[in-house]
Amino acid sequence: MAEVIDIETSGPGLYEFTGRLASFAKGDGVLTVFVRHTSCSLLIQENADPEVQSDLLAFFNRLVPPSDDPSMSYLTHTYEGPDDMPAHIKAAMLPVSLSIPVTGGRLMLGTWQGVYLFEHRRRPHTRQVAVAMIQAV
Amino acid sequence: MAEVIDIETSGPGLYEFTGRLASFAKGDGVLTVFVRHTSCSLLIQENADPEVQSDLLAFFNRLVPPSDDPSMSYLTHTYEGPDDMPAHIKAAMLPVSLSIPVTGGRLMLGTWQGVYLFEHRRRPHTRQVAVAMIQAV
Amino acid sequence: MAEVIDIETSGPGLYEFTGRLASFAKGDGVLTVFVRHTSCSLLIQENADPEVQSDLLAFFNRLVPPSDDPSMSYLTHTYEGPDDMPAHIKAAMLPVSLSIPVTGGRLMLGTWQGVYLFEHRRRPHTRQVAVAMIQAV
Repeated sequence: MAEVIDIETSGPGLYEFTGRLASFAKGDGVLTVFVRHTSCSLLIQENADPEVQSDLLAFFNRLVPPSDDPSMSYLTHTYEGPDDMPAHIKAAMLPVSLSIPVTGGRLMLGTWQGVYLFEHRRRPHTRQVAVAMIQAV
Repeated sequence: MAEVIDIETSGPGLYEFTGRLASFAKGDGVLTVFVRHTSCSLLIQENADPEVQSDLLAFFNRLVPPSDDPSMSYLTHTYEGPDDMPAHIKAAMLPVSLSIPVTGGRLMLGTWQGVYLFEHRRRPHTRQVAVAMIQAV
Repeated sequence: MAEVIDIETSGPGLYEFTGRLASFAKGDGVLTVFVRHTSCSLLIQENADPEVQSDLLAFFNRLVPPSDDPSMSYLTHTYEGPDDMPAHIKAAMLPVSLSIPVTGGRLMLGTWQGVYLFEHRRRPHTRQVAVAMIQAV
């Protein structure tokens, strides 16, 4: 049965939870990870150099600036704040679900791959991620 | 066995089909949704405020303008019209498959999450979406 | 059990491997494809006109230019070369996993859909792709 794990966030950024997925990986099959929100994302990215994470944040903030930036004046869904609609746009561009093969009870992640919750909103949130392990028969 | 559902589209926009997925969700496991085209996408997004949908469309049309826009003059695959190659680019950036956990016969979507076909072409199309339910054993 | 296939790349571009997936598709279920790297991607795209592929490359190179381009001077993770951080950004924007329904031992790809490894780095690489078939019961 799928389970839900909570991830606490305190502003935009990447929150790693690779370690919390290990206990769900069983036998041979596929682990599905799914985020139950439309203003944050999942992301598999390099887990070694923290500069990769700050550069990723910088890139996406330039690609999708806050709605009080003059370049975004065409946006209409703004009443929850300038980070509201950009969060939906980023959530559209980045993964809502991940499917990770499992062999012998281990996630088949590459050496440098970590699994992250990518928070796009400024206020603190408790984010729910559903995790389901399907074993091959 | 996977089944195919048809979704009729009449120009660029988000076409919700969350309700049509409910009958595929059975027991505990994962529902896979897959779009069989390269010029439209799947998307999970907010189902409450229609402004989110029009803002998403506006953002992606600015990020990937039609090929008759001067900024896109480098594109070469243009013989099917100015919305042809931009549709392929949007289809590359947005999901072709979604994996949604199912518990007790219910999709584990968040409260505000709807499942959409995101049409990128101007002409009407009948789009095929393959749906496969895999139950955990 | 999931298996790993190697894909040799020699610079940025789309490397099709649709044909190598056919032997993994069995019965009815879902084939999961997962790339074990953070500087290349998976992509399902049109397999007919090669101009689509060169246009896709051109678009993403303009959206995410090399870090020695003046517009990217804010990037800090640059010591592996000007194609390093842009590769991570593209890998964040494009799929790391694909879930493809299978019916009667055949992938349910659309007529024009091919499965590609999208290489973002300039130097040659051997890329590992994990493939797992889960049959419905």
